Amino acid sequence: MCAYVENNPGREIIRLSIGEGCRPLAACVVQAMQDAAAEMGTEAGFRGYGPAEGYEFLRRAIQDEYARFGVKVDTDEIFISDGAKSDLAHILELFSADNTVLVPDPVYPVYVDDNRLDGRRVIYAQANAENDFLPMPNPAVHADLIYICSPNNPTGAAYTAQQLAAWVAYALENDAVILYDAAYRCFLTEPELARSIYQVEGADQCAIEIGSFSKRAGFTGTRCGYTVVPHSLNREQMNLNAVWRRRQQTKTNGVAYIVQRGAEAALSPKGQAQIQKDLNYYRANAAVLGEALDEAKIWYCGGKNSPYLWLKCPGGMGSWQFFDWLLEHCGIAGTPGAGFGPCGEGYFRLTAFGEKEKTRIAAEKLKAALLQL
Amino acid sequence: MCAYVENNPGREIIRLSIGEGCRPLAACVVQAMQDAAAEMGTEAGFRGYGPAEGYEFLRRAIQDEYARFGVKVDTDEIFISDGAKSDLAHILELFSADNTVLVPDPVYPVYVDDNRLDGRRVIYAQANAENDFLPMPNPAVHADLIYICSPNNPTGAAYTAQQLAAWVAYALENDAVILYDAAYRCFLTEPELARSIYQVEGADQCAIEIGSFSKRAGFTGTRCGYTVVPHSLNREQMNLNAVWRRRQQTKTNGVAYIVQRGAEAALSPKGQAQIQKDLNYYRANAAVLGEALDEAKIWYCGGKNSPYLWLKCPGGMGSWQFFDWLLEHCGIAGTPGAGFGPCGEGYFRLTAFGEKEKTRIAAEKLKAALLQL
Repeated sequence: MCAYVENNPGREIIRLSIGEGCRPLAACVVQAMQDAAAEMGTEAGFRGYGPAEGYEFLRRAIQDEYARFGVKVDTDEIFISDGAKSDLAHILELFSADNTVLVPDPVYPVYVDDNRLDGRRVIYAQANAENDFLPMPNPAVHADLIYICSPNNPTGAAYTAQQLAAWVAYALENDAVILYDAAYRCFLTEPELARSIYQVEGADQCAIEIGSFSKRAGFTGTRCGYTVVPHSLNREQMNLNAVWRRRQQTKTNGVAYIVQRGAEAALSPKGQAQIQKDLNYYRANAAVLGEALDEAKIWYCGGKNSPYLWLKCPGGMGSWQFFDWLLEHCGIAGTPGAGFGPCGEGYFRLTAFGEKEKTRIAAEKLKAALLQL
Repeated sequence: MCAYVENNPGREIIRLSIGEGCRPLAACVVQAMQDAAAEMGTEAGFRGYGPAEGYEFLRRAIQDEYARFGVKVDTDEIFISDGAKSDLAHILELFSADNTVLVPDPVYPVYVDDNRLDGRRVIYAQANAENDFLPMPNPAVHADLIYICSPNNPTGAAYTAQQLAAWVAYALENDAVILYDAAYRCFLTEPELARSIYQVEGADQCAIEIGSFSKRAGFTGTRCGYTVVPHSLNREQMNLNAVWRRRQQTKTNGVAYIVQRGAEAALSPKGQAQIQKDLNYYRANAAVLGEALDEAKIWYCGGKNSPYLWLKCPGGMGSWQFFDWLLEHCGIAGTPGAGFGPCGEGYFRLTAFGEKEKTRIAAEKLKAALLQL
């Protein structure tokens, strides 16, 4: 793209490639962090080292949110972190480098990068149009660690609890652990889709769930996430909750108090109301892009329960070929599907995280160009 | 101590055991974080994912501070983190589990804990009254990784640049890497003591330095630190700066923007002026405790260039025996030296981080009780 920008200096590029929101932090989140900063500036309110696993007030707020999904989680099963990305990397310390890792293809590339850094064998569960980009377990294949990202980045495909039950059964059968990445859960609208893997019976014996404030509350630059490690999750004579607690207490001093107060505010009724407005802003963007694709008769999934639209490149184009075409004909930068794994070849990701008016213009340009193809 | 508190419900315990300051965040740090929070609440000021290695503005402020020590560090050699504790743990990913680790005894126990979690062999450099609690390298012993904490926690002993030069020569000779923990550097007063290992020629080829805002600026609950990995540090065909950058970019999304603005403010001239007042507050506590020990003719080191006073338990008492005695006779809780390693047996750590008036009362009680021994 840099070469394109250099060769076309006057042309504005609309970026539908970014993986994070553009909306500012909610007013009550800002207020909570300012209040917390003020508190830290007083003798009575100053707080030093906090608990490595996070403050009780935030773990309780997360517990309450789980209760709203009908899931019962103990506050001692919740560990606050500086974000899902760190937790996804560090949680691997619980697992041997000899483990075989099953990763959906396509998916967020960091899962593979983390495991390659550790030298683990990675195998893939192929997602494609035939399985609605929701691969199901293959009983003939053994894995020790299974990644599930639902709603998926990049495809936007999301599992029902019934579908997840098959993965839980597979994990229990294989003595495997599921790492369930729920970073995009806030985008779910259809009620039959699972909000948490713990909606499935037995998941507390085989699954770790990772949550984030990044996409839901604009915390990409404010850094807060959490990981649920159930008390009943045991592997190789180890209680993983206890091992993770020891790891966190040895290797971290927890997350900034100020940030945790911000995250608490994001989960408050006032925070939720403000954040829903932003989520609706992105949902409206997704709808605008989806309509353009519908009218151009382009196959896509996602966009309804996800900020991402995953489209089949028209005219048999490859991912990178379509990237060039889109940039050339529409001045739009998107993300080639091939970057998320081999099964992403021939597909393309557009994001609803952009600014409203720019997204509207992009959708118009996209439709017009596609109809002329 | 819990049993003691239960058995003596009416008695107030003065805690000279804590490892962190009690003074609130400086006003300009609070203001900077509030301003940054406000910025994040606006469309124009909102910031999403920041650089994994930290914002340039903070790396530059740290670079400027190094320049004041006469040390030239490139901003690309500085990596911002959520604290020294995390960095001390994660930096070990650069080193094989087969490495032999040399740790001073006594020292901050986390060095050993981190390495035990990874399964590394740990050997010790014995610190004692004979070597002024400043062990020097033994050419007959090989190590791959060397921890130096100066000023030391718990002893308060600090190396001169000349002494550090012997460690740098040893590391270069052994192809070893020094992990230099400078968390307590802000307490140094005597000009001949080293502020940074990079004051020694050749250290950029064998040393990683870890800094912290915790003790100097009250950031224990606000979480910000940094690690310097020089461009010229290579081991086993790897450039450690490049490998660490890749690690940070893969496994983290950096530190909260708001916190980084707070740390920047702490390094500003205004911040430094405010923070020096707090450091002087702790120094005055150390002086009060030191005078009590002097008058009672108890041997100790530290306290001058460190918030910790490291004393020889009187009457041949063991560390835990003195702990009980101190609690019983003075109502003071301190930290038994044995908890920091076998060489700490028979010694005891008192901290200057407490509240001024309580520290004064504790010093009086301590002196009176010691004089009656």
